Order: sequence, then C-alpha cells, then structure tokens
Amino acid sequence: MKHPSLHPHRFFDPDPSVRRIAVELHDSVRDLPLVSPHGHVEARILATDEPFPDPTELVIIPDHYIFRMLYAQGVPLEALGVPTVDGTPVERDHRKIWQLFAANYHLFAGTPTGAWLAYELAELFGIEEPLAPVNALAVYDRMMELLQTKEFRPRALFEHFRIEVLATTDGPSDSLEHHRKLRESPLPGRVIPSFRPDAVVDLLRPTWRREVDALSAACGIEIDSYRDFIRAIEDRRAFFKSLGAVATDQGIESPATHRLSESEAESLFARALKGEATEEDNARFTAHMLMEMARMSVEDGLVMQIHAGALRNHNRHVFRRFGLDKGADIPVATEYTRSLRELLNEFGNHPRFTLVVFTLDESTYSRELAPLAGHYPAMKLGSPWWFHDSIQGMTRFREQVSETAGFYNTVGFTDDTRAFLSIPARHDLARRLDANFLAGLVARHIVGMGDALALARALAYDLAKRAYKL
Amino acid sequence: MKHPSLHPHRFFDPDPSVRRIAVELHDSVRDLPLVSPHGHVEARILATDEPFPDPTELVIIPDHYIFRMLYAQGVPLEALGVPTVDGTPVERDHRKIWQLFAANYHLFAGTPTGAWLAYELAELFGIEEPLAPVNALAVYDRMMELLQTKEFRPRALFEHFRIEVLATTDGPSDSLEHHRKLRESPLPGRVIPSFRPDAVVDLLRPTWRREVDALSAACGIEIDSYRDFIRAIEDRRAFFKSLGAVATDQGIESPATHRLSESEAESLFARALKGEATEEDNARFTAHMLMEMARMSVEDGLVMQIHAGALRNHNRHVFRRFGLDKGADIPVATEYTRSLRELLNEFGNHPRFTLVVFTLDESTYSRELAPLAGHYPAMKLGSPWWFHDSIQGMTRFREQVSETAGFYNTVGFTDDTRAFLSIPARHDLARRLDANFLAGLVARHIVGMGDALALARALAYDLAKRAYKL
Amino acid sequence: MKHPSLHPHRFFDPDPSVRRIAVELHDSVRDLPLVSPHGHVEARILATDEPFPDPTELVIIPDHYIFRMLYAQGVPLEALGVPTVDGTPVERDHRKIWQLFAANYHLFAGTPTGAWLAYELAELFGIEEPLAPVNALAVYDRMMELLQTKEFRPRALFEHFRIEVLATTDGPSDSLEHHRKLRESPLPGRVIPSFRPDAVVDLLRPTWRREVDALSAACGIEIDSYRDFIRAIEDRRAFFKSLGAVATDQGIESPATHRLSESEAESLFARALKGEATEEDNARFTAHMLMEMARMSVEDGLVMQIHAGALRNHNRHVFRRFGLDKGADIPVATEYTRSLRELLNEFGNHPRFTLVVFTLDESTYSRELAPLAGHYPAMKLGSPWWFHDSIQGMTRFREQVSETAGFYNTVGFTDDTRAFLSIPARHDLARRLDANFLAGLVARHIVGMGDALALARALAYDLAKRAYKL
Repeated sequence: MKHPSLHPHRFFDPDPSVRRIAVELHDSVRDLPLVSPHGHVEARILATDEPFPDPTELVIIPDHYIFRMLYAQGVPLEALGVPTVDGTPVERDHRKIWQLFAANYHLFAGTPTGAWLAYELAELFGIEEPLAPVNALAVYDRMMELLQTKEFRPRALFEHFRIEVLATTDGPSDSLEHHRKLRESPLPGRVIPSFRPDAVVDLLRPTWRREVDALSAACGIEIDSYRDFIRAIEDRRAFFKSLGAVATDQGIESPATHRLSESEAESLFARALKGEATEEDNARFTAHMLMEMARMSVEDGLVMQIHAGALRNHNRHVFRRFGLDKGADIPVATEYTRSLRELLNEFGNHPRFTLVVFTLDESTYSRELAPLAGHYPAMKLGSPWWFHDSIQGMTRFREQVSETAGFYNTVGFTDDTRAFLSIPARHDLARRLDANFLAGLVARHIVGMGDALALARALAYDLAKRAYKL
Repeated sequence: MKHPSLHPHRFFDPDPSVRRIAVELHDSVRDLPLVSPHGHVEARILATDEPFPDPTELVIIPDHYIFRMLYAQGVPLEALGVPTVDGTPVERDHRKIWQLFAANYHLFAGTPTGAWLAYELAELFGIEEPLAPVNALAVYDRMMELLQTKEFRPRALFEHFRIEVLATTDGPSDSLEHHRKLRESPLPGRVIPSFRPDAVVDLLRPTWRREVDALSAACGIEIDSYRDFIRAIEDRRAFFKSLGAVATDQGIESPATHRLSESEAESLFARALKGEATEEDNARFTAHMLMEMARMSVEDGLVMQIHAGALRNHNRHVFRRFGLDKGADIPVATEYTRSLRELLNEFGNHPRFTLVVFTLDESTYSRELAPLAGHYPAMKLGSPWWFHDSIQGMTRFREQVSETAGFYNTVGFTDDTRAFLSIPARHDLARRLDANFLAGLVARHIVGMGDALALARALAYDLAKRAYKL
Repeated sequence: MKHPSLHPHRFFDPDPSVRRIAVELHDSVRDLPLVSPHGHVEARILATDEPFPDPTELVIIPDHYIFRMLYAQGVPLEALGVPTVDGTPVERDHRKIWQLFAANYHLFAGTPTGAWLAYELAELFGIEEPLAPVNALAVYDRMMELLQTKEFRPRALFEHFRIEVLATTDGPSDSLEHHRKLRESPLPGRVIPSFRPDAVVDLLRPTWRREVDALSAACGIEIDSYRDFIRAIEDRRAFFKSLGAVATDQGIESPATHRLSESEAESLFARALKGEATEEDNARFTAHMLMEMARMSVEDGLVMQIHAGALRNHNRHVFRRFGLDKGADIPVATEYTRSLRELLNEFGNHPRFTLVVFTLDESTYSRELAPLAGHYPAMKLGSPWWFHDSIQGMTRFREQVSETAGFYNTVGFTDDTRAFLSIPARHDLARRLDANFLAGLVARHIVGMGDALALARALAYDLAKRAYKL
C-alpha cells in the first residue's frame, strides 16, 4: 500500500475546478531550483561530504519535530538515542530505535512531519509504503544500503536536489572554515553563511563570557568595553559578508527595540562583563542591539532577520539532561506594533534596509505584521515558521496576510530546517500549498490565471532571491 | 417542512468527494456508545428518576445558551421564567414562555444551540418541523405528553442514549448521596462524580467561609489551618475516588501556577479565615492550589482538568438578580506558556500524571496549547469548550491543533453540558465534524482511509476512555 | 482581456452546489438600496456637486489603501502626489502618477482594493481590462472624459448608486453647513452627519486647545471647566441630531471605560486647559468620556459607535511630512471584556441604548466580542473594519462571530469609506460574501433556504436600518 501523501495531487483542494488549476500552477513551478535563504543545515556536512551514518542518526536523533511527538506520548528521549549532556546513558541500538519509531508512526498522521517523512522515504529511498512495525527493519536496511552509495553522499544530494542557494546559520565567532573550504571546491549552487549573534547578545546565557572571549579571539579585538564589542560585531559581519553572507538573524523572545545612549550601553555592558547583568539589563541590551544591528544593516547591506516569540527551554528537566533545541521551546504572545516602532521609525523608510520578520504568534499576522509590512518599505514578512510551517499553517498565513500586505511584501518560502534531507520535501509542500491557495483565488475569480502564474513563480522562487539580494 | 439540520448529511462538506468519505467515516462511529468524562448533569436526576416537568423547564429555563441569546435581543430574563435570587417575580406560565421562545427561534439560525435543539426535537420527540409561533403550542403539548411516558424518564433515556460513562461535577463537600444511590441501583452505564474544589479555593467568594465549614463537616476535619485544609481536600478526593471519580476539575480565570512555601501558605490561609484575604492573596492561593492539586493527582491518579479564562458574572445586574451561571461569563485573553511552566516543570514529565487543559482563548490553540501538549507527556488538550463547542469552532480546533499536537495528544469529545437531553445531540455534532475534518484530510491525500477510520474511532471513543482511564 | 473580478460569480465558492445557492441568495439582495450608516465621504462633495477633478485625484491621492501599498514597495509618496504638510514639493503631473500606479497594479492582486478598483473601473467607467502600463493613459483619458459629463457629477452618481442613507463623520465644531444645504436641495436619499468628538476628547493632540475653542465658538458656550465642556458636547449632539444624525463615533486606542468623580474630572480638565495633561490623564479622560457619551446616548437616543485599537501615525516621518491618515496607523492587541465592563454594567442592559463596537483585533471576535454581543441587549458588533473589510476578512468575521452572537446581534455592512466611488463596489463585495457564507450553511444543511433568504436581506439591508434606527 502506497502512502497517501505520495499522490500526485496531494494537498490540493478536492474541488475539481480548484484542483485542476492547482495542478497547472504547481506544474509551472515544481522544477524551479530551490532557494533556501535561511536554515540550520551545517556547512560541515557538505564540506566534508562524509556519508550519512544510518537512518536513525539521520532522521530521528537530530529532529526535535519527531522526538518531541514521541516524548509527548511517553517515550523517553533516552530510548530514542537523543544524546544527553549530563552523562545519562541512552539507547545505542539504532535499529531498535528505528523499530520504536515505526511503532509510533501513527502519531504523525495529519502532521507536516508525517508528510515530509513520506516524501523523503519515497522520493529518495524509493520506499512508498507507510512505515510500520512489520516493515521497519527492512526499511532500515534498505536505507542503510543506499546511504552507503555515492548517490547519497551530501554533495551528490545537494546537486540532485537542485539547490541554487543554501544559507546556513552561524555563531558570531565561527571560523566559517567549512564555508571557506566549500569556496575551494564549489558545488553547483552557493552555500553561504548567515550571521547570528545571539550567543553574545543574550547577556544571561551561562556561556556568555566564554562566547565574548571567542568573539574577541575570532576578530583579534580585545573586548573591554561596549565600544569594542560593537567593533567586533562589525568586524565579524564584514568577515561573514566576505564569505558570501547576505543576511543576519536574531532569535529573541520579545522584538522590543530601543536605542540606549552610548553611556548607558557602556555601563550596562560593563556590568555584564563583571557578571552582574540583570534580566532588565538583558532586555534593554537586546532592544538596543536590535537597533544597532539595523544600523549596521543599513551600512553593510546585510538583510536583517528576526525570529521572535519562543520561550526557550521551557522544560528544565529536558534542558538539564539534553541541552538546547530539544523540543521544549514554546511560543508566547508577541507584540510587534509598539515593539518595532522605534526601529522602523529610524530605519524602516530607508531604501537600503530590509527587515524580515518571523513570528510564532499567528494572531499577529492580520493584526500587526501585515499592516506593518503593507506600509514600511523596509519590512517584509517571513514565511510561516516552525510550528506553523504546515499544511493548515501555511494556508492560514496566506489567508490572513495577503489581503493587507499583498504577496510582494512577503519573501517566499524559507525551509528553516536542520534536516538536510527534508529540504526538497519542505519546498514541495510549500509550492503545492501556494499553488493551491492561488488556485482558490482563480476559481473564485479574484485573480486571473496570468497573475496566478506570475505569483506562483514569485512565491516559489523570485521573492526569496529578491528579498535576500541573491 | 423538515428542519434542514435533520438531513442525514448535515454538517458535512458539500464537495461530493469529501462528503462521501465523511459519510463512511461517520457511519463507522455513529453507533459507538457515548463517553462523557466531563459535564454538569446532576446525578440526582438519574438517582430519583423523576419525570421531567415540562418543555420550558427542560429546555429553556436551565440553559444559558438559550436565554442569553433572547436576552441579547431585549427579552427580559424574567419573561423567560429564569428564577431570581432577589425575589423579583418571574413569568410562571410555561406555555407562554415556550411561545415567546418560538417567536425568537430564528435567532438560533447557524448556531450550535439551534442544531442541538433540532436534533433533540426530532430524534427524541419526533418533531421535525422547525419551531415557530404557529406550531409552538402544539409542539409543547406533544412534548408534554411524551415527557409523562415511561420512555422519557431519565433512566430510560440514559439507556436509550447508550451512555457508557457519565461524569458529573460536584462541590468539595457534596455528600454524593445520589451517586451512592446509583451504585445500589445501577444503570447500564457508569455515573461517576468529579471533584471540583472551586468553592473553597476561591478565597473571595462571599460564601467561602461557609463552604470551608461545609467541607470540614463533610470530612470531619476541623479546618483551622492551611495544613488542615489540605488534609480535608485529600480526604475528599479519596472519598470521591471511592465512588468512582477519575478526575478533578478547576475553573480559574488565570492558569498561573506557583508553589508557595508552607509558611506563606499558612499565613495566607490564616488571613483568609479572618476574612482579610486580598485579591493578590487569592491569585497567589489559586496558583499554589493548582500545584497542590497536581501533586495530589500524581499521588492518587485522578486526572486533573482545568477550565481557564472565563471572567465570571460580567453583568452585575444579572448576577445580583439571577445569580451564578446566567450567561454573563465572558472570556478573557489567557496565557499558558509562562503560567503553566512551574506546574509542568514539576509534574509534566511524570508518567502517572494527566493534565487536561480547556481554553476559551482560541488564539492559544496553535501558539501555546498545541506546542505544550505536543511536548509534555502529562499534558493533553481538552476539546473545544463552551462558546467554541460549535460547528466552526470544532473545525478551527482541529485545524489549529492537529498539525502540532497530532490527534493523540487530545482527549476526544467532552460534551460539558447541563442539559441531559442534549448529550446525544452534542456527540452527534462532534462525531460528524470530526468525520468531516478527517474526510478533508483523506480527500487531500494527507491521511489514508485506514488511518482515518482509526482516528475517527479514537476521537469519538477511544481517546476519552484512555485519557480519563475509564 | 476582461478583469477576472468582473465575473458574475466572483467571490463565490467554486463548489457548484454552494455556488448555485450563493447566486440565488445574491440575486435576492443585489438590487436592494444601499444603506451606509458610517463612513467618511464629505457632505461637501454632494452639496456643491462639483465635478470630480481627474482620475488620479479621485482614485489615488486620497486613498491610503492604495498609496500605502506602493509606498511599501518603495514608491515615495511624493511621487504619488500625496500632499505634504511640511512644504516638500510633490509630483503634479497626474497622468504621470496614473502611469506609475498602473505599473504597480499587480501589487493589488488578491487584495480587496484590487477588487474594488476593478468594479469601479468596469461598472462606472466601462473599463473591463485590468489596468496596465500599456493602457494606463488611454484609461486615464477615457475616465477624464466621463468625469466631465453630467452623469458623473456627485449627485447624479448618488442617485445612480441608489443610496438610501449616507452618514458622514464630522468634528464636534463642524458647522454642518453642507448638511444644511443638502436639506434645502434634497437628494433621493438621506445624507446625515455623525458626531465624532475625538478632536476634543484626546487631550494630547497638539491642536486640542484650538479645537476646544472652536467647539466653544460653535455652540456659544464659554468652556472654562469640565462642566462647561460637557454642556458644549451635549449642545452639539443636539445640533447634530437636529440635522438628522443618528449616531456618534469615537476612535480610540483602548476601549477602557471608567467613570471619574465630578471633582476628578474637573481637576483633570483644568490641568488640560493649562496644557499640563499627562498621558495617564488622557487615558483616564478618554475612559471617562466613553462613560459620558454612553450616558448621553441613553438620554438622546444617538447610537454610540466605537472604533478601537489603532495606534495612529506609527511612522513619524510620514506623519511629519504628510499628516494624519496616511496609511501609517497600525493595529494593536485590544482588550474588551474587562475594558467595557464598567460601561456595559451601567448602560448595557438599557433598552434605549445601542453600542456598536468595531475592532482591528480579530482574535477578539470569538473570544470577547461575540460573547459580549451575545449577552448584552445594548451591544452590537460592527462589521469587519479597515484591514479586515476584505474577502477573507469578512468570511473570518462571520465564521468566528455567528455561532456565538448569531446574526441578529450584528449590524450589517458598514462601508466606512472616504472614497465615494467605491461605495457600490464595497457593498457588492459584502453582499456577495454574505450570500456565499450563507450558501455554505445551506449546503451543509445548517440553515434552510427560507432562513438564508431572510438572513441575506437582513445582512444586506435590514440590520443596518434597525441598529441605526433609520
């Protein structure tokens, strides 16, 4: 039995008139190259081109979308082989983990994770049946076999996927050695870094001081003051740009923006260096650094991205045992209208500046983000993010954003994935949903087919290239 | 003319391909027994088995869904026979009230109340025409006639409805005499109590002291201290459990959770006993009691339910004249991510603990509740509640929750009704909407028919039994 | 090529069974006269009956829906001829502006602005092709030609549009001279003023003192105290009422309501007169004035409207150069349940009082506004406003409001436009969407065709007349 999500008309509206148009629109974009201006694939994978170890290590262990769902149903993360930071032993038999995953595969019914998995297994590995306890080990073995072939090496897949640009996300002191290596043995598409300074902007991270030292070492600037710090950031941005970066990114709980005076910033930073920064200090510093990052973007032309509204490491038990990014980041209500006002007033009318905003709070789509992006020339809306990068989620985004912001104040699709193999699956889903959304507009005589074809291409390809200056 | 909502395909998508699948899925679950793990039907009705008095007393007077709609259009509650607590006389001619109701029946077009009513009138009383001024009294008389027959006695209807479990909601000092009686003359299904301590947790209720005394009397524990209070609560939980209870419930404005130190709790409780508790005290005590109720649930295995976000008795005029639960409870924006963090950090990873959360703030479905339930093993999402237990409301719930939390982190359908006769109508609506939602997934090739059949059954029956350990 | 939005079945669901019903419902209301109980067309236009100057001055320059979208894509407002308040010169060649507009016409694909424009161009000017660079000047010339004919004079169009009532929005000291003139040379429909006191209620407007003086002059009451101020307001309301006004309106950031004591109000007002009012003073005064406006409405019978939740003039650069209402008003999250409680407790049960609430925060539809309007006899829900007065936005409104508030606690459609020529386009869109929404209910057997026909008429015509006592 073939997995239902492999149907050629998957995700399209069942109404025949809509579906017919959706098919035509999708056909017009399905083979466009993939542009991935924001994500978390590691450059190392492509630079070293080592074979992927095994299905479990490839699909389950690094993917918090998958293991959080099993965890929510009572499966311990240890039993899934998720590595611990506190030394607790974890399951090492990857076939056993795969079997456990297969036994819980029904949990993903109706989820985007389920749809992506079905696509990966079928399109890459030729496995068209749904995963189940009875076929789990046979599937594992077949995948294992293929993963050892040349065609499944990362660089071969990169070419096979027809990726035109892949942006990674990198820490402020990252040497970008793998990006440098990739420039020496180029791929058929570009792999470029993005500058994400969170580790040195968040004054309260336990590792903050260490990260500042690493930043200092990376650029050879002694960081004894706020002024030094800013110089170091500027230096690193230039370095990232020299290796192809077109954008920065910041992950923040609140998008509040506010410029501190030079002397406030200095004394606040001095407190942080002494390890005396308070929560209030941290919030003020983040708000100030957003202003500074925008100022630098106006100067160096890097696109500024913000990802706002996740309360990180909600589950302290999971955080202590397993560390960061283990599925326990939970969204909070987020305010943009007042928060971004100072930044947009200072830079939002500037023709050289681009600010791409991502949210986890869908209630802000129609209330705040579409009106802001539908007014300020510098502001664009990022695509639905994380929990909302889903079949219904992407539909809600288009429905709630397009009428106020139009299509051209958005930036196309951003896959934002850590899972290299899921990139084509995610673009496939997004292109289908956008085709389907546009087909609905055509069928209701809201846009004509000519406009719809242009929009389908814009959403699948052009807008991302334009917004990120690629 | 037959009421449109009696059509065998009611509530299904008009697209023929979706409808066909919806019919098939619905057929597979329509005859499953009803499981009602949370509601407000009184055990007394079934224990005494007295005939229902008359249509007005059955349908209109106790149902705030109905009389609030007429009130909103200018019909005084007095004219509808709603009993007053301040002695104001009310209409006593129930036929006249029924006539007034019939004259306003059009107000319910497109509402779930209208759909439930149509089902009750047709399925129970054989009345298939819409209620209208011209047929009002004939309908009343026909219903009156039937209500006097053996088949319309509560116990006969309970059997006719094929209820497998019916949970009531009971105050902390309730003697549960009717539940005891029901154990002596059992029905074909279980009737079980649920422990709801709101009356003694809300320190600012005018009746608080009286309720604490009643609690003390009920368990024979002198309550002179917080410690005594906790012992009394634990004692009553054990008593409820001995009579079949599987769950507790709390109605709270804010779901904030925070453990007080023993000494803080004691001094706060002492202030309350002296009648000196402040609003701040009350909020802190509620947040603490949520922690304590969770702790007790881990110990005794009772499922913990919370219903958050209603501002009670918004309309003081209506409250003063008519008392509690008269349709003037209005939702407020509610925060869960930060609020539940302390509770979930302490108990949310515990395998013996189940927390079922109900909300009135739909903006939290995709932003907070689905991500939380899609991570914490203990947390499950309750079904759409109250204003949102409706055709579009239930659809929105599935659309906004399923992709992040999946289906298995929800608890199936909860009818939550005071109106015994509406139970089958509410389950009928829910089963149809879930069948229709799943049919949409099948028609768009997101899930296969096999999975959809399993999910339809899970949503209609299995998940409620599993979550509530029935 | 004809514009797609001119299709006779535009905006209807593509499902044939829904579409057939939608067509029938729409046919039953399409020719009803237009009732426009709230909007921003100037009475002057109709009183003087001067020809409209040219297409650019008619369509682009006054319409912030249009120029904000071009501004968001980097077109300077100066290039669009938007007049400045700081003396910066702007483009004066209106044909060139029209050409620039046509070159950006694709930005409006899928927006309500695009749909309205298509309707206006086709229905009024006979231009059925989409605007494009190639036809821009020919279209301009054709429009110019027609605008000089008798048929395109404002009064002729008013008759042609079959407007039954048109309410304008007027400042507190407005002489209403044009309204008086209109009473002397009456149109086939009524043109009535609405009283909007924002200019004298917002204590922090730079022009506040000047506006209070104008108010004083208008009614001949020396305003030296809060008491005088209230008398002046009451006097002006009576004057507006004498010229046909049926309603007041207030635009407020927060709908908080709270009555001050007489002495507090006096001392606060005294501070304002001395130019010493603080932000806190202003918030308290607004909350108090909402109570007073409600009190006056109970006395004089004028319907009270509030439009809440816009943060005005978000973009200070645009505000400084171009002034008020230039597309830089951005919504904020808005709270109604607690905010309106004091007002609704004092007046919400009063049979003579009507409060119509408009929101920009869609998350409050199902959470707060529908429950409030579904309970309080005085409160009604205004139609979707501004950013949400759109194809999807109006659908969301019905979906999220109707099941709790029913249809009869809403007030039909309010076009709320400044653009006289867009009135029929907006009613056409609204009538089609309501017909389509009702058709969906009929096709799913939720309401019958008889009820749907009555509801279609109510939403298109009756409810507005009833709510505004027209």
